[in-house]
Amino acid sequence: MTSSSSVTLSQALLARAISHHGSNSTSDRVSLSSALSLPTFSGLKSTSSSASSASSKAPRVPRRRLGAARPVRAAAVETLDKTTETSLVEKSVNTIRFLAIDAVEKANSGHPGLPMGCAPMGHILYDEIMRYNPKNPYWFNRDRFVLSAGHGCMLQYALLHLAGYDSVKEEDLKSFRQWGSKTPGHPENFETPGVEVTTGPLGQGIANAVGLALAEKHLAARYNKPDSEIVDHYTYCILGDGCQMEGISNEVASLAGHWGLGKLIAFYDDNHISIDGDTEIAFTESVDTRFEGLGWHIIWVKNGNTGYDEIRAAIKEAKAVTDKPTLIKVTTTIGFGSPNKANSYSVHGAALGAKEVDATRQNLGWPYEPFHVPEDVKSHWSRHTAEGSALEAEWNAKFAEYEKKYAEEAAELKSIITGELPAGWEKALPTYTPEVPADATRNLSQANLNALAKVLPGLVGGSADLASSNMTLMKMFGDFQKGTPEERNIRFGVREHGMGAICNGIALHSPGFIPYCATFFVFTDYMRAAIRISALAEARVIYVMTHDSIGLGEDGPTHQPIEHLASFRAMPNILMLRPADGNETAGSYKVAVDNKKRPSILALSRQKLPNLAGTSIEGVEKGGYIVSDNSTGNKPDVILIGTGSELEIAYKAGEELRKEGKAVRVVSFVSWELFDEQSDAYKESVLPTAVTARVSIEAGSTFGWEKIIGSKGKAIGIDRFGASAPAPTIYKEYGLTVEAVVAAAKEVS
Amino acid sequence: MTSSSSVTLSQALLARAISHHGSNSTSDRVSLSSALSLPTFSGLKSTSSSASSASSKAPRVPRRRLGAARPVRAAAVETLDKTTETSLVEKSVNTIRFLAIDAVEKANSGHPGLPMGCAPMGHILYDEIMRYNPKNPYWFNRDRFVLSAGHGCMLQYALLHLAGYDSVKEEDLKSFRQWGSKTPGHPENFETPGVEVTTGPLGQGIANAVGLALAEKHLAARYNKPDSEIVDHYTYCILGDGCQMEGISNEVASLAGHWGLGKLIAFYDDNHISIDGDTEIAFTESVDTRFEGLGWHIIWVKNGNTGYDEIRAAIKEAKAVTDKPTLIKVTTTIGFGSPNKANSYSVHGAALGAKEVDATRQNLGWPYEPFHVPEDVKSHWSRHTAEGSALEAEWNAKFAEYEKKYAEEAAELKSIITGELPAGWEKALPTYTPEVPADATRNLSQANLNALAKVLPGLVGGSADLASSNMTLMKMFGDFQKGTPEERNIRFGVREHGMGAICNGIALHSPGFIPYCATFFVFTDYMRAAIRISALAEARVIYVMTHDSIGLGEDGPTHQPIEHLASFRAMPNILMLRPADGNETAGSYKVAVDNKKRPSILALSRQKLPNLAGTSIEGVEKGGYIVSDNSTGNKPDVILIGTGSELEIAYKAGEELRKEGKAVRVVSFVSWELFDEQSDAYKESVLPTAVTARVSIEAGSTFGWEKIIGSKGKAIGIDRFGASAPAPTIYKEYGLTVEAVVAAAKEVS
Repeated sequence: MTSSSSVTLSQALLARAISHHGSNSTSDRVSLSSALSLPTFSGLKSTSSSASSASSKAPRVPRRRLGAARPVRAAAVETLDKTTETSLVEKSVNTIRFLAIDAVEKANSGHPGLPMGCAPMGHILYDEIMRYNPKNPYWFNRDRFVLSAGHGCMLQYALLHLAGYDSVKEEDLKSFRQWGSKTPGHPENFETPGVEVTTGPLGQGIANAVGLALAEKHLAARYNKPDSEIVDHYTYCILGDGCQMEGISNEVASLAGHWGLGKLIAFYDDNHISIDGDTEIAFTESVDTRFEGLGWHIIWVKNGNTGYDEIRAAIKEAKAVTDKPTLIKVTTTIGFGSPNKANSYSVHGAALGAKEVDATRQNLGWPYEPFHVPEDVKSHWSRHTAEGSALEAEWNAKFAEYEKKYAEEAAELKSIITGELPAGWEKALPTYTPEVPADATRNLSQANLNALAKVLPGLVGGSADLASSNMTLMKMFGDFQKGTPEERNIRFGVREHGMGAICNGIALHSPGFIPYCATFFVFTDYMRAAIRISALAEARVIYVMTHDSIGLGEDGPTHQPIEHLASFRAMPNILMLRPADGNETAGSYKVAVDNKKRPSILALSRQKLPNLAGTSIEGVEKGGYIVSDNSTGNKPDVILIGTGSELEIAYKAGEELRKEGKAVRVVSFVSWELFDEQSDAYKESVLPTAVTARVSIEAGSTFGWEKIIGSKGKAIGIDRFGASAPAPTIYKEYGLTVEAVVAAAKEVS
Repeated sequence: MTSSSSVTLSQALLARAISHHGSNSTSDRVSLSSALSLPTFSGLKSTSSSASSASSKAPRVPRRRLGAARPVRAAAVETLDKTTETSLVEKSVNTIRFLAIDAVEKANSGHPGLPMGCAPMGHILYDEIMRYNPKNPYWFNRDRFVLSAGHGCMLQYALLHLAGYDSVKEEDLKSFRQWGSKTPGHPENFETPGVEVTTGPLGQGIANAVGLALAEKHLAARYNKPDSEIVDHYTYCILGDGCQMEGISNEVASLAGHWGLGKLIAFYDDNHISIDGDTEIAFTESVDTRFEGLGWHIIWVKNGNTGYDEIRAAIKEAKAVTDKPTLIKVTTTIGFGSPNKANSYSVHGAALGAKEVDATRQNLGWPYEPFHVPEDVKSHWSRHTAEGSALEAEWNAKFAEYEKKYAEEAAELKSIITGELPAGWEKALPTYTPEVPADATRNLSQANLNALAKVLPGLVGGSADLASSNMTLMKMFGDFQKGTPEERNIRFGVREHGMGAICNGIALHSPGFIPYCATFFVFTDYMRAAIRISALAEARVIYVMTHDSIGLGEDGPTHQPIEHLASFRAMPNILMLRPADGNETAGSYKVAVDNKKRPSILALSRQKLPNLAGTSIEGVEKGGYIVSDNSTGNKPDVILIGTGSELEIAYKAGEELRKEGKAVRVVSFVSWELFDEQSDAYKESVLPTAVTARVSIEAGSTFGWEKIIGSKGKAIGIDRFGASAPAPTIYKEYGLTVEAVVAAAKEVS
C-alpha cells in the first residue's frame, strides 16, 4: 500500500522530468499523463492512513543535476479526467472563497476581497504545485509560501484547512479574528503553524520571501552535492497593489533580480483596487516595465479568475527560468463572485453582509451552509496528508544517505535545520583586559563576528552599503552573489528596510540561521517596520548598529541618533544592547545568539573606548551590573550609571569622587530589558531602594531614565538634536563630561 | 544704469523665448545670440550695485501662455566668445572641485568625491540655468535645488559661495563641519539660507524635491491667470546611486510620474561607486528601464565630467517635456581629477590627504592656494547678485499688478508665501459639549480638517491609501491629480515614507503651506525617517495618525501601536498629541497649526469616545491639565492620569472612587512636550509634588511614565504586543479597565 503510494509519487516525478525537457508549454501535459497511464488519484488517496509510518521505505526520486532545468513535480490533478478535474477545481476554488466569506461574515471583520479573487492561484499552489507536509509544518525541505498581502489571510487559512494542517480546523475558521484563536486578523507565524512569516504591514512579505529564497539558494549551494540535492524547494508569494506601491518591495525586488533568485515565484494580484478605490488614482506606473528593469522574468496571466491552465502554464514557465525570479502578474477581480461588490473597494476590508453573501451564493451556485466543505473537495484534498508524509519520509531517507557520505556538511546543515548550536560555541567569544588598547565597539563587534563565523554555521549577514564603516565583513568568506551563493557576506546595498525584512525571512527559514545586518544606528528609522516584525515574529536577527551617538561627530544631526535607544527600549520583545567595551561587546553577542526568540540591537561606537576593569560577559547577561564600587553594606553615597561610550565617563567620575572620599558605585546598564528580568533581590543588590542619589549619563534622550534613577536622581543626556562638529567638541558643548557627572553627583547626594 | 540691467535681462529672455519655439536642439543657440547682438556679459556686471533698489521699475517679460512650451531663460554664458566660455567654465568647475577638496581637507572629514564629479552639472545649474536671488534666499519664485546626495554638501556650499549667498562666505567654507558653522556635514535648511531642505539620509532629498515640485504645480494651477503666470519655477535635484537604491525614491518617483510633474528635473549622478565599492556588487538593475516604467522622461548624458554642452542640451530637452518629470542620468567619475583615487570608494567619504591633493592640483593644472577663487571666476559669478535682485524685482512688480487685478487670490497666495495666517482662523475650530454624541477622534479630526480647509489656504494633504479609514478627505475639494493640480486632496497611495518626505518638501516650499498626511499610527514605522526630518528641519507637517492603539481591534498586533507614543515623546522638536474627545481634537489642531517650526503627530482613535466635561482647547495648549477634580487645597488623595481613549477610563474611575469618598483629580495628558514647557507653578498646580499617589492609564507602553507618576505611582499600560480580537475584549484581557484603575488607585493612596 505504502509502496504503491511511493511508486506513484516517483513515477509521477519521473514522468514530469521527462515531460519537462525541451518544453515550456502546457500542451504536453495531457498527452503525457495519458501516454504513461499513471495511476489515478484514488490510488494515492487510499494510502493516506499509513504513509507516514512507512516513511523510511520510500524509494528516492531520480537524481537531478545541479544547474540543469529542474523537473517539476507532477501535479496529481493531471491524472484526473479533464472534465472532472475542472469542475472539481472550480468547486475547490469556491470552497476557498466561501470559507473566507463565511469567516469574515461571522467575525463581522476582515478582508474577503482578496481570497475571493486569489482563490484560483491559491488552489493551484497548495493543491497542485507546492510540496509540504501538513502534519509537520516545519519539515525543512518544504516549499515556502508567503501571503505578502496579509490582510487576505483567510485565503491562507482556508488553504491550510483544506490541506489538512492541524492548526486550522473548522473551529479555528469559526473563531477567525477572535481572542486566543489560531486565525488572527493577519498571518502570524508564532500563532499558526503553516504560516511561515508574519505579514500585514505591506511589502514585508515579499521581502521575507526574498529572504527565504536567499536562504534556500545559499544552503543549496553550500550543501548540495553532485549526487544529492538535499536542499531544493521553492518560495512562492502573493503580493498585491499595496505591496507594490511600498518602497521596500522595490528594494527587495532589485536585490532578488541582482541575486538571480530563480526559485522565487511571486504572484502579483493585479486587481486594480486598493482601499481608496481604483488604483488609477495613485498607481499608474507600469509594474511590468519596472520589474523588467529589476531583472525579473515577467508573465502575465490575463484571466486569474478562471484561467486555471494559464496559471499552471505560468508556474511551469517560471520554474523553467532558473536564473531570474519570476513575477506572475495575475489579473483578478477583487471579490470575484459577489454580484454587487466585486471589483470595488467595498469588498476589500469589510464583511459582505448577509444579503450580499446570499447573492454571492446564488451567483456562484453555492448551496451549502456556512463553513461547509463538500465531500468531494474534502476527499480530493485529503491526499496531501499521505503525500506530505511521503515527501518528508523520502527526504529523510535522502538525508540519512547524505549524512553517511558527508558527515561534516550534514552536521552543519543539521545545526541550521534544528537550531541546535554547536556545543561550546560561546568559547569562541573574545575577552579583554584593561591592558588591551582602546578600540571602537564597532571594531570589537567585527572581532566577535569573525570569531563566531567559525563556530556558528548559520551566521550570515552584511551591511546596507556600509560594511567598511559598520565593520561587518566576515573575512574568511566571500560575497553571496548570483555566481557565489555559497558565500556568507551579504551586500544589501543602501536598502535598510529591505535588509531587515530579508533577514527576517532568513531567520524564519530555519531556526539555526543567525542573520545579522548593519547600518548606522540612526537609520534604524528606515527599517523600523522590519525590526518590529523581527520582535513580533520572534525572528532572531542581530542588528549591528554602529555610529550610535553624537560620538560620530562631523556628519551631524541627520546622522546622530538621539531618541533611538529609548524608542527600542519601549518596543516589546527586543533586546536593546549598548556595550561599553570589548567584554561587553562579546557579552552582547552571547546574549543575541542565546535569545532564539527575540532579536537584538547592538548600538556600537565609531570612536575608541577603553577596556574597563570590571566589565564582563556575565555582567551583560544581567543587563545591569556593578563595574566598580568602593562602598560597603550595599550603601554607596551615590550610584553612577552609564551605558556604552558613556560608561567610561561615569567610571572616571567615580574615580574623581572617590578621591574626595565618596563611596561610589558605578553601574553599567547595557540592557534595560535583561535587567528587568532579574530577580528583585539582584536588582536590589545593584540599585538599592534606599540609595536615591543616582546619576545617569548616556549620549541620548533622557526619556525613560526616571525609571532607573528615580525622582531624586539626575539624568545627563541629550534632549535636542545633535550637531556637526568633531565629537569631543560636541560632548563638551552638550555637557557630557566627567565634570558634569561629578557636579550632578554632588547635587543629588 | 538700472534700466540697462533690466533691458539686458528682458532682452535675453526675449531672445530665448524666440529661440525656443519649434526647436529642441542646442545648435540654434550660438547663431541666435550673434544674430541679435545681445549685450555682452560685462554690461550686466556693471549694474550689480543698484539693481535691487530699482526693482519696481523692471519692465515685465513677455507673457507666457499657460500650457504652452515654456521659454527658457537665456544663459548669459551664451553671449561670451565660445573659447573663453569653455575655459572659464572649466575654471569655474575646477574652482568648485577645489573648494570642496580644500574644505574637506581642512576639516579632515567629509565627502570630496561627489562634488568633484558633479561640479560640471552644479556649475551649469547655478550659473546658467537656475533663477534665484542670492541676497534673498527666500524669494518665493526662485527655482529650487535639492542635493539629495547630501553628503556631497560641499558642492552646494561652493555653489552658494560663488553665487554670492551671504550664508556661505570664505570663512564658512573654512569652518566646514565645525562647531557653530553654517556649513555642517550635511545640508541643513535651518542652518544655511540657500539650502532648501535637510538631506543626508538617502532618498529623502528626491522625495522633498517631489514635494517642492508638487507645491509649484499646485500653486501655479491655483493662482496663475491667463494674463499672469505668477507662479513659475523649476525644481532641480541631484541624487546618487545610494538614493536610487532606497525604496523611498521609488515611491516618490512613481508618484512624480503619476502626477506628471514636468518641472521636476532630477540629475542622477551615475558614478558606479558606493561606499562598499563598485555598485556591481548590489545594484545591477536598469535604472533607466525602471524610470521608464514609472512614467519619467529619461536622458542620458554620457560624459558628465566635461560634456558641458551635453548637460545643457539635456536640461533644454527636459524643460521641453512638460507632462513628465525628467531623469537626466549623468555618467560621472567620482573624485574626477584625483589621479589615484578617482573612480574608487576611497574618494567618497574621506579627505584626499595632502599628497593626493597635490597630485590633483597638478593633474587639473590648479596652481592656487587652498580656498582661492580666481578673479575671473569671481567676476564671472558676481553678476548673479544683480541678476537675482532684478529677477525678484521683476516678480514683485508682476505680483503688484496681480494683486490689483486678483485681490482675493493674491491675499491667499500671500498668506501661503509669508506664512501669516488669516486673522481669527482658529474661530473655525469646532467645540463640543458632553451632550454631543460619542464619536471616534478620527471622525472629529475630519470635522476639524474640513473646518480649517475653508480658512487656511495652505492646508493640503491626504492619506496613504487609507483616506476612508483615516477620515482625511476635505469634502469641498477634489483630488490633486495630473489634470487637476489645483485641487487639495492628495492621494499618496500606499507609500508612507514617500508621503512624509513629500510633505516635508511642501512645508518647506513656502511657510504658509500646512501639509497633513495620514496612515495608521503603527505605520509611522514606515515613515519615521521622514518624520524625524520634519522635526529636525522644522517643517510644520501634521501627521494624522488614526487607529492609535489596541482599540482598533481585530487587525491584530501588526496593526496595533504599542511603543509608538513613547518613541515620539523621546524625539526632539515634535509634538506628540493624543486627544481624548472633540475639544481635545480641536485643541490638537490649534496647536499643530500654531507651531510653525515643529511638526505634530495626532494619535486618533478608531473607536467612539464620549465628549467629556472639562476638556478644552486651552487645556490642550498646556499639554496636561485637570479635567475633573473634587479635591481642595491642591491636595487630592489620588491623581488619575489618562490620554486619548483612556481618559474616559480614568474619568469613570474617578467617579467610582469619589462615590467611596475619595478626593480625586483626573488629569488629561494630551501632550507631554507642551506640559514640559509650562511654568513650574503651573506644573505644581496640576501635579503637586506632595501627592505621590498617582495612577496613569494609556493603551501603550508604560515606558517613560515614571517621569509623570513618580516612583510611588502606578502605570497601567501595555508592555507586550497586542492581539487580534474585538477591541473591548482586548481592553478587558489586557487589564485596561475602570476596575483596574480603581484598584491601582487604592493600592497607591
